[in-house]
Amino acid sequence: MIKAGIIGATGYAGEQLAWFLYKHPDVSVEFYASHNYAGMTYNEIYNNFNGYIEDVCVNMETAISKLSSINVLFTAMPHGKTFKIAEKALSLGVKVIDLGADFRLKSKDEYEEWYKVKHESVDLLASAVYGLTELNRESIKGCNLLANPGCYPTATILGLTPLVKNNLIQPSSIIVDAKSGVSGAGRSASIASLFTECNESIKAYAVASHRHTPEIEQELSKASIGNDIKICFTPHLVPMNRGILSTCYGSLTKAVTAKELIALYREFYKDDCFVKILDGLPETRWVRGSNLCHIGIKVDARTNRVIVISAIDNLIKGAAGQAVQNMNIMFGIKETTGLDIISMAP
Amino acid sequence: MIKAGIIGATGYAGEQLAWFLYKHPDVSVEFYASHNYAGMTYNEIYNNFNGYIEDVCVNMETAISKLSSINVLFTAMPHGKTFKIAEKALSLGVKVIDLGADFRLKSKDEYEEWYKVKHESVDLLASAVYGLTELNRESIKGCNLLANPGCYPTATILGLTPLVKNNLIQPSSIIVDAKSGVSGAGRSASIASLFTECNESIKAYAVASHRHTPEIEQELSKASIGNDIKICFTPHLVPMNRGILSTCYGSLTKAVTAKELIALYREFYKDDCFVKILDGLPETRWVRGSNLCHIGIKVDARTNRVIVISAIDNLIKGAAGQAVQNMNIMFGIKETTGLDIISMAP
Amino acid sequence: MIKAGIIGATGYAGEQLAWFLYKHPDVSVEFYASHNYAGMTYNEIYNNFNGYIEDVCVNMETAISKLSSINVLFTAMPHGKTFKIAEKALSLGVKVIDLGADFRLKSKDEYEEWYKVKHESVDLLASAVYGLTELNRESIKGCNLLANPGCYPTATILGLTPLVKNNLIQPSSIIVDAKSGVSGAGRSASIASLFTECNESIKAYAVASHRHTPEIEQELSKASIGNDIKICFTPHLVPMNRGILSTCYGSLTKAVTAKELIALYREFYKDDCFVKILDGLPETRWVRGSNLCHIGIKVDARTNRVIVISAIDNLIKGAAGQAVQNMNIMFGIKETTGLDIISMAP
Amino acid sequence: MIKAGIIGATGYAGEQLAWFLYKHPDVSVEFYASHNYAGMTYNEIYNNFNGYIEDVCVNMETAISKLSSINVLFTAMPHGKTFKIAEKALSLGVKVIDLGADFRLKSKDEYEEWYKVKHESVDLLASAVYGLTELNRESIKGCNLLANPGCYPTATILGLTPLVKNNLIQPSSIIVDAKSGVSGAGRSASIASLFTECNESIKAYAVASHRHTPEIEQELSKASIGNDIKICFTPHLVPMNRGILSTCYGSLTKAVTAKELIALYREFYKDDCFVKILDGLPETRWVRGSNLCHIGIKVDARTNRVIVISAIDNLIKGAAGQAVQNMNIMFGIKETTGLDIISMAP
Repeated sequence: MIKAGIIGATGYAGEQLAWFLYKHPDVSVEFYASHNYAGMTYNEIYNNFNGYIEDVCVNMETAISKLSSINVLFTAMPHGKTFKIAEKALSLGVKVIDLGADFRLKSKDEYEEWYKVKHESVDLLASAVYGLTELNRESIKGCNLLANPGCYPTATILGLTPLVKNNLIQPSSIIVDAKSGVSGAGRSASIASLFTECNESIKAYAVASHRHTPEIEQELSKASIGNDIKICFTPHLVPMNRGILSTCYGSLTKAVTAKELIALYREFYKDDCFVKILDGLPETRWVRGSNLCHIGIKVDARTNRVIVISAIDNLIKGAAGQAVQNMNIMFGIKETTGLDIISMAP
Repeated sequence: MIKAGIIGATGYAGEQLAWFLYKHPDVSVEFYASHNYAGMTYNEIYNNFNGYIEDVCVNMETAISKLSSINVLFTAMPHGKTFKIAEKALSLGVKVIDLGADFRLKSKDEYEEWYKVKHESVDLLASAVYGLTELNRESIKGCNLLANPGCYPTATILGLTPLVKNNLIQPSSIIVDAKSGVSGAGRSASIASLFTECNESIKAYAVASHRHTPEIEQELSKASIGNDIKICFTPHLVPMNRGILSTCYGSLTKAVTAKELIALYREFYKDDCFVKILDGLPETRWVRGSNLCHIGIKVDARTNRVIVISAIDNLIKGAAGQAVQNMNIMFGIKETTGLDIISMAP
Repeated sequence: MIKAGIIGATGYAGEQLAWFLYKHPDVSVEFYASHNYAGMTYNEIYNNFNGYIEDVCVNMETAISKLSSINVLFTAMPHGKTFKIAEKALSLGVKVIDLGADFRLKSKDEYEEWYKVKHESVDLLASAVYGLTELNRESIKGCNLLANPGCYPTATILGLTPLVKNNLIQPSSIIVDAKSGVSGAGRSASIASLFTECNESIKAYAVASHRHTPEIEQELSKASIGNDIKICFTPHLVPMNRGILSTCYGSLTKAVTAKELIALYREFYKDDCFVKILDGLPETRWVRGSNLCHIGIKVDARTNRVIVISAIDNLIKGAAGQAVQNMNIMFGIKETTGLDIISMAP
Repeated sequence: MIKAGIIGATGYAGEQLAWFLYKHPDVSVEFYASHNYAGMTYNEIYNNFNGYIEDVCVNMETAISKLSSINVLFTAMPHGKTFKIAEKALSLGVKVIDLGADFRLKSKDEYEEWYKVKHESVDLLASAVYGLTELNRESIKGCNLLANPGCYPTATILGLTPLVKNNLIQPSSIIVDAKSGVSGAGRSASIASLFTECNESIKAYAVASHRHTPEIEQELSKASIGNDIKICFTPHLVPMNRGILSTCYGSLTKAVTAKELIALYREFYKDDCFVKILDGLPETRWVRGSNLCHIGIKVDARTNRVIVISAIDNLIKGAAGQAVQNMNIMFGIKETTGLDIISMAP
């Protein structure tokens, strides 16, 4: 039995993680740590856990004191807050899976430029593994510090990597127009996230400045043969709880049909049971509540462009589900354990 | 392994049932029958089943031809359509679980008055068991024809039975103001159910005339000591996919506190793991996606009234989940098998 | 030209009021005062006013200093905050229309019991007029201090008064089950009002304890012939921006048909162009964005009950629209001036 | 007084048109014609018009018989249905404003290629004026047959024309990622438009094949200096009633800042009161219910791209509002008459 601890357990990603770990046959959660809700029972905060998770949330100090009793620590904190606790856990031999942003970028400078805070654990960057499971499975196996990808990057990188790897897309032509449900904004009291401010509206935000941009570029550049890829990335906020749809555009380097691309994608992801290449187009509702990524591909022959559209549940494949998927691999468990959930419709 | 067939498999209740049975460790589904989608694969209709249920839907004739190879038939059809197929299945020794309305009312006259069609299987009414699991567990065990309760009745009867059975509520005082998500209207093309017609609005409908009224009255009268209970029932349509909230009012027969009632309810449902009595008030989101019923109880001492509020997922505890719960009992399987799902939030 | 000031101009009720007054042919707004946004332009906060209201919001001190230059002050503040400013304005000969709760209840004791704060302007209570326009038009004409009704009371009192006045409903039998959109919770950062916490759910709240209860009782008792009416009142939160639906139940004192009641209501409201008695049932979408109240009436002969359902836009007839309607009367302007807006669908 | 008739009066665009014309000081509507609802009163279909528009809808035959008594005919029909009625009306000296697609494309071939029906009024194409008011005001003045633009084209062309006209954008680089509320799908019973199928989801549709593509290309090419512009266009369906957000991407032909572009846009639209150039980013909620177009502009210096985002209400500036705006010009009335509505928030 893997003993796990969660820090940041009462945010939406942390709560989704608690949901998965509670049912995971090989995991027991030793503590749920929360900055804002320490002292309350978990089910007081999330009533869906009435009769299930009724543990009292602990504070950071208690969490730290329990580090030596666990095998894996999940952290789901705002950026800049995970450095010290990750170091501490690793020094005690505890594997760390960070759902936050602090270990995703390999370049300290890039991190500091986009996140506007000093990176305090530069020494850990080299050994941190970027946990987009389908693309980095081998490195994940032996790693101790896993940087779990962001939600937009997960959908986008899964959508574009087969094209980039096969040199089918002009490196400078990539535009990503992404759409997210409101849970992506987290569970903190803010006027911008009120029902009345989000409902019946759509908007773009952080245009040409969103922090997931360098993360996508880093991984696509890694997949590319000799290109340093820069993308134009625009996230949008959609009035729904969950879901990300990433609509990715690029110019084709040679004539190819959608049918050929679909075959290529199916071959590329043939061993990845959480990625489904569709004949048609994805909709976020079909993956909501699951760890799946649905991908649809179209070619606009008139303009020589490919349009790849990928859909995930931002809290699952885009956060907690992928974290569990990575944990399974890190601990030598079957990758799908505890994750084999089909989306419920409607 | 229980062999099952589903008729009406592509409506929302049928689809939820397919969802549960696909994962049920003791069930294999032999056919998915659909009036409108015969010939299509299941996942073409519901893309969430891509990679999971990819069977071709069959028509009614094929379904009938396969009856002899199954142990249980689930029917999820409009009222008036299940008589013949149920008779046929029963005659072949197949147990029938009907998610429709045709066998819920014990009185043929009441059925014909409220549903405006002739009852064509009057002989079956005596042996049909009303499957509100928590209240009729013993009768369900041996039954061959199970009438699975309606969604509003499930929430309402679970909410009111402890009061009625303990003679704590004046029988003529009961008012039920219920609210449902739009999936309750089913998956048929109708202007009234369009996004644009339901979103950003709430309305009452079928005031003093909804067909679930006699079903609730029948079961509450059965629970009552010598009273023929009539209720005033008003359903409302709420802009959300899933969920029923039933707000039930009645005059108390004696002074009692909410705390005492909560204790009484907890005792009443102490062996029922799908019913949770809350200290506070239920919200449909905390039970959405689960087979749970959350119940909250308040006393309005100023007006000597009790207010009981119960929440369920209309497609699960109000339809497919309870059907599986009943199947488990009918086949001697542990009641919670395949149903132990916690609601996902948000 | 009537010179007006608004205190609490950046809450949702204040904003709706600004919307109406900006277009009102007989009003000029001299200042928009805001606790949280003083110093910002109005359209920075509400971008719909780009190119329209671009005034800088002032703070309370500035507002007070401008009192002597206006004819009417609108206050839209949390309860307990309006006493001093109202006194001050009245002392300067400025008429006051309070959209808050501080002058609605005639009884100081009742106010203090339900609102848990001391009433600091008891002397003003006698002269304050409760501004449910259709019922108090004559008293409104000459008044200086108008207590604009709450949203739930407006819908409920309009729905029940004809029955109460005609002694058609048993005074102790009244139950009000009301449903509101989320804008009723105001525009303040709270986790409970986040999109992700409200969407896809319905809940009751403040059961048997909501502060609008005594307000409804006061006005219904006034309408009644010799009865002190107590009601059982349950508000619910619905995932929509705007709208209140009030479903009111009561036992009939004599046999009467819905048709007769509809005729009675039409006669009762025959001079009130903002109240429409329907043949069918109301839906909040048909009144959203308008100052209308739609009322539908059904009789449940089986249980001898009447069900009256009324729908309003909580921010308009339930707040700012009615405030303007009252202002029009107080200043001798045609009652409908600036208010003749038809709801937009969908 | 302008006498108007509406054919297709009970679809969403027709209904929005009825809303505007009812209040328009210079217009009287002589008939509301409807294919599906002839014989019903208008307010039976749309209850928001109770007490306002209570006319009986007429059928097409009656509409035709009344053509000689009107000055302007509005048609809001599916494509391919307007040819004959437009010819008939024009032959009687009635001006025609078509909210449908039949006269938008100048090229018969392009029409037939994209719409898959034969164009039956080719002779009218030369004289039809494309009614994007801000860009074609002069031609609109004298025209008899006005082709009112589609919703996506309105938002997109307003967003891109200043760049194209000033040769600031590489003609082959344009990608338009647009998002629409569900009212864009019209008011017909279809499973895909059910609340339960649209809510809590986002999807792309008609990728690289949407019929608004050639319309956008035609107008941008016209604005361009010597370029035949082809765009890559992807529409998306968003769970909200109203609103279009068009996110437009292109490569800059020279180094320019967002600030400079904002200044250029403000100059370009300086006489157009319905177009507002923002300092920040648009959100559909701020224009919902109004005839406004809000435009925001960002430059992504890292990738040398401009991102222009425009927001409209699809039923107003994208349909009925612009039709009234065009009517005003065609009849020499002040352009804003009857259209000066501010969006209501929330």
